[in-house]
Amino acid sequence: MTLQVGVIGVGMIGREHISRLAHKLTGAEVVALSDINSKEAEHVAAGIPGAKVYATGEALINSSEVQAVVVTTWGPTHEAYVLAAIKAGKPVFCEKPLAATAEACLRVVQAEIACGRHLVQVGFQRRYDKGYLALKKTIDDGVVGRPLMIHCAHRNPAAPEAYVSDMAIVDTFIHEIDALRWLINDDYVSAQVFSPRKTRHAHAKLDDPIIVVLTTKNGVHIDGEVFVNCRYGYDIQCQVVGEEGVANLPEPESVLLRREGKLSASIGQDWKMRFIDSYDVELQDWIGAAKTGKVSGPNAWDGYFAAVTADACLEAKRSGARASIVTPPRPAFYD
Amino acid sequence: MTLQVGVIGVGMIGREHISRLAHKLTGAEVVALSDINSKEAEHVAAGIPGAKVYATGEALINSSEVQAVVVTTWGPTHEAYVLAAIKAGKPVFCEKPLAATAEACLRVVQAEIACGRHLVQVGFQRRYDKGYLALKKTIDDGVVGRPLMIHCAHRNPAAPEAYVSDMAIVDTFIHEIDALRWLINDDYVSAQVFSPRKTRHAHAKLDDPIIVVLTTKNGVHIDGEVFVNCRYGYDIQCQVVGEEGVANLPEPESVLLRREGKLSASIGQDWKMRFIDSYDVELQDWIGAAKTGKVSGPNAWDGYFAAVTADACLEAKRSGARASIVTPPRPAFYD
Amino acid sequence: MTLQVGVIGVGMIGREHISRLAHKLTGAEVVALSDINSKEAEHVAAGIPGAKVYATGEALINSSEVQAVVVTTWGPTHEAYVLAAIKAGKPVFCEKPLAATAEACLRVVQAEIACGRHLVQVGFQRRYDKGYLALKKTIDDGVVGRPLMIHCAHRNPAAPEAYVSDMAIVDTFIHEIDALRWLINDDYVSAQVFSPRKTRHAHAKLDDPIIVVLTTKNGVHIDGEVFVNCRYGYDIQCQVVGEEGVANLPEPESVLLRREGKLSASIGQDWKMRFIDSYDVELQDWIGAAKTGKVSGPNAWDGYFAAVTADACLEAKRSGARASIVTPPRPAFYD
Amino acid sequence: MTLQVGVIGVGMIGREHISRLAHKLTGAEVVALSDINSKEAEHVAAGIPGAKVYATGEALINSSEVQAVVVTTWGPTHEAYVLAAIKAGKPVFCEKPLAATAEACLRVVQAEIACGRHLVQVGFQRRYDKGYLALKKTIDDGVVGRPLMIHCAHRNPAAPEAYVSDMAIVDTFIHEIDALRWLINDDYVSAQVFSPRKTRHAHAKLDDPIIVVLTTKNGVHIDGEVFVNCRYGYDIQCQVVGEEGVANLPEPESVLLRREGKLSASIGQDWKMRFIDSYDVELQDWIGAAKTGKVSGPNAWDGYFAAVTADACLEAKRSGARASIVTPPRPAFYD
Repeated sequence: MTLQVGVIGVGMIGREHISRLAHKLTGAEVVALSDINSKEAEHVAAGIPGAKVYATGEALINSSEVQAVVVTTWGPTHEAYVLAAIKAGKPVFCEKPLAATAEACLRVVQAEIACGRHLVQVGFQRRYDKGYLALKKTIDDGVVGRPLMIHCAHRNPAAPEAYVSDMAIVDTFIHEIDALRWLINDDYVSAQVFSPRKTRHAHAKLDDPIIVVLTTKNGVHIDGEVFVNCRYGYDIQCQVVGEEGVANLPEPESVLLRREGKLSASIGQDWKMRFIDSYDVELQDWIGAAKTGKVSGPNAWDGYFAAVTADACLEAKRSGARASIVTPPRPAFYD
Repeated sequence: MTLQVGVIGVGMIGREHISRLAHKLTGAEVVALSDINSKEAEHVAAGIPGAKVYATGEALINSSEVQAVVVTTWGPTHEAYVLAAIKAGKPVFCEKPLAATAEACLRVVQAEIACGRHLVQVGFQRRYDKGYLALKKTIDDGVVGRPLMIHCAHRNPAAPEAYVSDMAIVDTFIHEIDALRWLINDDYVSAQVFSPRKTRHAHAKLDDPIIVVLTTKNGVHIDGEVFVNCRYGYDIQCQVVGEEGVANLPEPESVLLRREGKLSASIGQDWKMRFIDSYDVELQDWIGAAKTGKVSGPNAWDGYFAAVTADACLEAKRSGARASIVTPPRPAFYD
Repeated sequence: MTLQVGVIGVGMIGREHISRLAHKLTGAEVVALSDINSKEAEHVAAGIPGAKVYATGEALINSSEVQAVVVTTWGPTHEAYVLAAIKAGKPVFCEKPLAATAEACLRVVQAEIACGRHLVQVGFQRRYDKGYLALKKTIDDGVVGRPLMIHCAHRNPAAPEAYVSDMAIVDTFIHEIDALRWLINDDYVSAQVFSPRKTRHAHAKLDDPIIVVLTTKNGVHIDGEVFVNCRYGYDIQCQVVGEEGVANLPEPESVLLRREGKLSASIGQDWKMRFIDSYDVELQDWIGAAKTGKVSGPNAWDGYFAAVTADACLEAKRSGARASIVTPPRPAFYD
Repeated sequence: MTLQVGVIGVGMIGREHISRLAHKLTGAEVVALSDINSKEAEHVAAGIPGAKVYATGEALINSSEVQAVVVTTWGPTHEAYVLAAIKAGKPVFCEKPLAATAEACLRVVQAEIACGRHLVQVGFQRRYDKGYLALKKTIDDGVVGRPLMIHCAHRNPAAPEAYVSDMAIVDTFIHEIDALRWLINDDYVSAQVFSPRKTRHAHAKLDDPIIVVLTTKNGVHIDGEVFVNCRYGYDIQCQVVGEEGVANLPEPESVLLRREGKLSASIGQDWKMRFIDSYDVELQDWIGAAKTGKVSGPNAWDGYFAAVTADACLEAKRSGARASIVTPPRPAFYD
């Protein structure tokens, strides 16, 4: 059986997912496309044999030819499409964020629970990265004992003018927010944000770097550096300090060079190169799960929890004080 | 278009390739199977919808339902199947060795040239390994200048009783033989073999470790350690020393641990884990090429050259002296 | 000229310094010893030809045979001996802490300024460690640009029952307190302390680990993990994140092993082994400076600043809030 | 007791040793100097209080004020000075080579045996390098089991015009020749030399790189790359492959940098920086031993064995064939 997938949104990420589904992954085909810019959708469809363009995302979702939906539109539109997919009883893969606000995310959660089936997966692809999976296995196997602290860093070589301060949380650190609680099977209870000396390479509207401190239910202390003008490369660091030892996220493999007085390994410049393989794994996994009619990756509750946490980080950043992270108890549906 | 593949040989590697073609890769389906043990073939076919069992490899090759052939039988049978595939004008992927002797390999070369199309690919999967590809790019980009020397090692944790001395060359070092000349775009002219002190962990019929020294047309000196009872793990090392610098094959990525007085990374125990991804890349690449009716990976000439080199290594090992590696000039067909 | 040194305090560190001065370093001899336990002093003196025992530290300091003084007694006694040495106009090397309280340290500062000569050196040996010196040179050379953040960790394998919570600051993190402001030529303005989930390996009276956050005049954000029951070894980590790059304190050199499925380097278990060489460099440097009648290493102001900072860390730990670090302006004498 | 040392030869290495003995190490003073260029000797003596200049090395050796001798003159003069020191019954530290030829070295050996005391130490300083000592301890402790192979490299950034082919053996690889047999407690039985493709950075009279293959009594296979125009730095590599594991010589510690797309550590450019500490340890050790009237480091037999091995390497290089390394049995005197 081949999964008939409809993709809403043919921007950069949309086109990449379409290409993956059509040419690289197995078990799916792209049968439907839709975009607010219908010319663009027609253009992309021309390269995908069998893909039909729909006037609206809702039309695509409700088409009898579409078995599962991928949403890669602008964030504020996500909620409506995901709710429509739930209503249609179809598995939906939604790029982050799940919805524009925590409240909107909660509405998705409630709709999914009401429908009684696990249909929604959020695009937190780090959970599918080989390195994170190896680190999680190390922790889950108890190799370093109970986690006590996590030190991490998310560094980009440079941020454009359009990248303003809140994006350090909602676009960048959001990956750590989702990945770290998954990594240690824990939830956050508070956030605090520090603003170190600002780099001269950041533009006027951007505080860069920042340090986000999160604490968890189990008391784990997390400090996360976000530094989006670090100059030297795209670099993701994560060290978990446990009761019996310490484990670091693997460095990506690289040719070791001896040249011009240096022993060196190259550092990638691009988040896409760093995590490109994980997108394949993520979507292949989703195809497999969607064929069974339900999905198993990062779910709506994870999307909601990430939104609540990001809101607390933003509040903590504005106030300079610790902000609590409060949600209703996790519904049994998501156990 | 989906490539209709027939697989001859359903042993361990055969079944793995069948599984790849059927479930993991894109663009192919397994429509035909054959094995000297037909019950085994029936058993495997039962798990592959649409796969038909053929009484002989020749019948499979000549079936109108088969567009391309994968040969994963016992080495001595390779030549006949590959020649039959050439005769049938069908792309054929043949696991190493291409044929049982250098002369047999040369017959395949001649048949392929006579047929005038590039149909034969040999299963030297290291050329598809991410690490080797990165190392080759480093060399091809001139980062370390012209290669002068290569130091490499091929280590296995332990070899079984059935593994006897010649296998260190024809089953193990054969991977280096193919990969290194590809890596530096060069050919070998002589071989010498040293037998260091034997490890107490090798059984009576096995010289282990050995050191193979190869020299190339360009004068590059290669020393390759083959040590199949090294105890500690499966470890592939390769260092290219050039005029301007030195480059090492990347180490596989691994969680870095601090535990019990040690900073450590784990070393895999298994060749399969080390190169598993490269088998996927190799076969996916072959599917793509075979659809165009010709193949582009390691070719029959590479298979022949590897066989001649392995023969020279065996001769050098027996004589203790340098053995020449002599072939006819490479046919223009393979430029 | 050989420097005639008197050592007050023949406990463990005292005996080590005596042995260094007498047998290992050049340019000094130990001519005088004193200890509250005079038998112990006699015992040690028996092994040092030419060393005389004095009944009190003051008698030793004022002896005409003593040109310079080393103080390695119990902390609360340091102030009196250092003040006496200043009064006697003799260079004095005082193990940390300079005095029992910040106020006492300030009295030493004032006495030294009044005397008008640089006589006091405090035993902060990390400034003489090869690794820290290399890191400081990297920073001072501008290789990573202006410092923005420091991430560091001070880990011990295990702490004894006698080690209680405040010691994590005043005995352990005190080394970072001195070394980091020296490293980046900056001063602290506030401290905050976090208490992550406690390790099960810490005894009841000890909060372990803790995280100390310091901010500097220039806005540099420092997070320092102190974890004295980390189990795996004695491990000092320090990463300076600058505007143009990131620099890490070198790892101590170690044999790289491939064994039993692991690529590993050993981690020392003992602070003494880690910094043993720096004690030699420190004291040799002091001998050289003391011969000129003045000292040049970590001075009384550094000792005072460390004490004020440690007090702020303790206050921050108790309150859970940020504590200010306030001192009078640095006297021009110490520029 | 202070050892009264006379130094013959005040060239670059001579001056460095004089400075060490006079200012840095403990337990010795330089009381006598001699050089074929007496003005130079006078000049150096002017900076060393108490140092007297002698007209000849022999006069220095026989002076009643000299208790021990350091020889740092031109190689061909070593034999005479060392024999004179033996005749005078005085400990002598002789920079490598012990003498100009293997025969001359053997005469020194015989003279020392005849005198019945261990007086001669040869300046093979690698045995005092922290890294080599750690590697030797690893091997001696059996951590990697019985050694089977050694892979090593000796790389210099560039060689001057005056550096001609034989020097790659007698000045450069000579360090490996001594260090490796000490490292694994073994002796060499044969040598073979390969000349890979020559780097374009070597001048006309220099074969560079070369590979020296040594085999030992125990069958250990050693391949040593000598590459003195490697461009990138001074780099000493040594990997010992044993029955139970593999151990590498530690890399010198270095600040790890993340900068401009690279994770890098710097590689030194200079042999002196790499081994500077080992010269101190070596000479300090010799002072201690010489005070007891006998020496314990690399001895005359080691100097002789190195000379015989170097001769075999030169012969092997000229012939292209394997050369035997033959000596009389080691005299019991050197057990």
